[in-house]
Amino acid sequence: MGAGEYCRFGILTASDRASSGEYEDLSGPSIEEFLEETLTSPWEVERVVVPDDEQRIVSSLIDMIDNRGCSVVVTTGGTGPSPRDVTPEATAAVCDKMLPGFAEKMRSISLNYVPTAVLSRQVAGIRGESLIINLPGSPKSIREILDEVFSAVPYCVDLIGGPYITTDSSVVEAFRPAHARRE
Amino acid sequence: MGAGEYCRFGILTASDRASSGEYEDLSGPSIEEFLEETLTSPWEVERVVVPDDEQRIVSSLIDMIDNRGCSVVVTTGGTGPSPRDVTPEATAAVCDKMLPGFAEKMRSISLNYVPTAVLSRQVAGIRGESLIINLPGSPKSIREILDEVFSAVPYCVDLIGGPYITTDSSVVEAFRPAHARRE
Amino acid sequence: MGAGEYCRFGILTASDRASSGEYEDLSGPSIEEFLEETLTSPWEVERVVVPDDEQRIVSSLIDMIDNRGCSVVVTTGGTGPSPRDVTPEATAAVCDKMLPGFAEKMRSISLNYVPTAVLSRQVAGIRGESLIINLPGSPKSIREILDEVFSAVPYCVDLIGGPYITTDSSVVEAFRPAHARRE
Repeated sequence: MGAGEYCRFGILTASDRASSGEYEDLSGPSIEEFLEETLTSPWEVERVVVPDDEQRIVSSLIDMIDNRGCSVVVTTGGTGPSPRDVTPEATAAVCDKMLPGFAEKMRSISLNYVPTAVLSRQVAGIRGESLIINLPGSPKSIREILDEVFSAVPYCVDLIGGPYITTDSSVVEAFRPAHARRE
Repeated sequence: MGAGEYCRFGILTASDRASSGEYEDLSGPSIEEFLEETLTSPWEVERVVVPDDEQRIVSSLIDMIDNRGCSVVVTTGGTGPSPRDVTPEATAAVCDKMLPGFAEKMRSISLNYVPTAVLSRQVAGIRGESLIINLPGSPKSIREILDEVFSAVPYCVDLIGGPYITTDSSVVEAFRPAHARRE
Repeated sequence: MGAGEYCRFGILTASDRASSGEYEDLSGPSIEEFLEETLTSPWEVERVVVPDDEQRIVSSLIDMIDNRGCSVVVTTGGTGPSPRDVTPEATAAVCDKMLPGFAEKMRSISLNYVPTAVLSRQVAGIRGESLIINLPGSPKSIREILDEVFSAVPYCVDLIGGPYITTDSSVVEAFRPAHARRE
């Protein structure tokens, strides 16, 4: 339990309306709240709100990972089919490897709630020693997805050389194979 | 209910045998029959039968969307692993954005019926303000898939700037979030 | 029953530790054991163990298919998110067509056992008249996946012009549509 290592998280909200101030960003805070409830290892968060512009999202992701040292970046918004939805493209552009199974699972969770979850183009991938995960924009969907998939995040971060993240197992049980567990 | 807007649909059958007349196209008509039963907003359909040739499928898709104004094009056939199956490649070639979740869901529906549904390479994607969906060749599979996924089509078309499509909810309920519904 | 045709299978283990002899390859043998129990048509197997090096995996896959005539190559290992996991990239590099549905189904099987199955980047694809399938490294996962998806392998091999494979239906039922069955 004391074995958890410090991890910096990034939260990126992609939204024209939230970034112009026309609209309050509720999605970013809902991700932070999830982390608050879930993590037992030490952590800090960097938050940024950017418009739905591919170049702006690309530079923010690079900055969060390469300069600010975030081991996990969670994005929200910009994953739909509309012309302004470009978060998956921006994410793919900065990743070395994609994790298609992560995206498939996130969509299949949302499909339990809404049939239009098939329209989500969200992706997840690896940049260096960091994991990037796209979430949709709605706080309700964000929570539904994180409650289920976050269990795979700590072991993924182990595998790519990041810090050892621990969780409160009454919220989310971090799954690791026996050989990867620290007592 | 009276809010539905006129929508032009395209149906493209990709089949060497159907296009040479060796074999009657049953797949295209089965898609049209589904539309007949489902749509309550005004619509028309363009139908075309082409051989399993990537360039021919590409030009037909472009013609249906850019010249004939189809907001939704449904293809049938050419999605398997055989060398002549090239519909997904042709579709990807004309799309600006792919919708991987649409394809995942269509395959998972078919997997309830046949284990060889894993062999389907069908895709869905966006070209401009139009949606393209690949279906397999069998009328039975076509119906199984459309019955489930068509619920996401009207809202997708809204999001990409197309007409407001309405359906007979006793056949297929068009799903839209509350803020996107017209009374 | 007597209609089965001779098929050569390839089994490729990608593992730095197994290839250096630091560790015994248990994954390759577990795939061979599955084939032993399952196939009723005549077959032979080629086995190779290579390090997690993209170029080495690429050349081994090409050699197994183009020179040694394997109609089906099953790989094990190297499908995770770690920097040394490059089997999916090597597989995609030698394939003419990918079969995303195969990969989706394999991951969804593993998700019934471990939530970290979302981290698997395994793919399947076609090179010429041969099918390549990536499996994870653990013998337990290998068996869970093959038990379910192998039913689609014989018909896939039919469709790409390979031999007619038959199975012991008490182990795995080879699924073929009626018109593709030989008595």
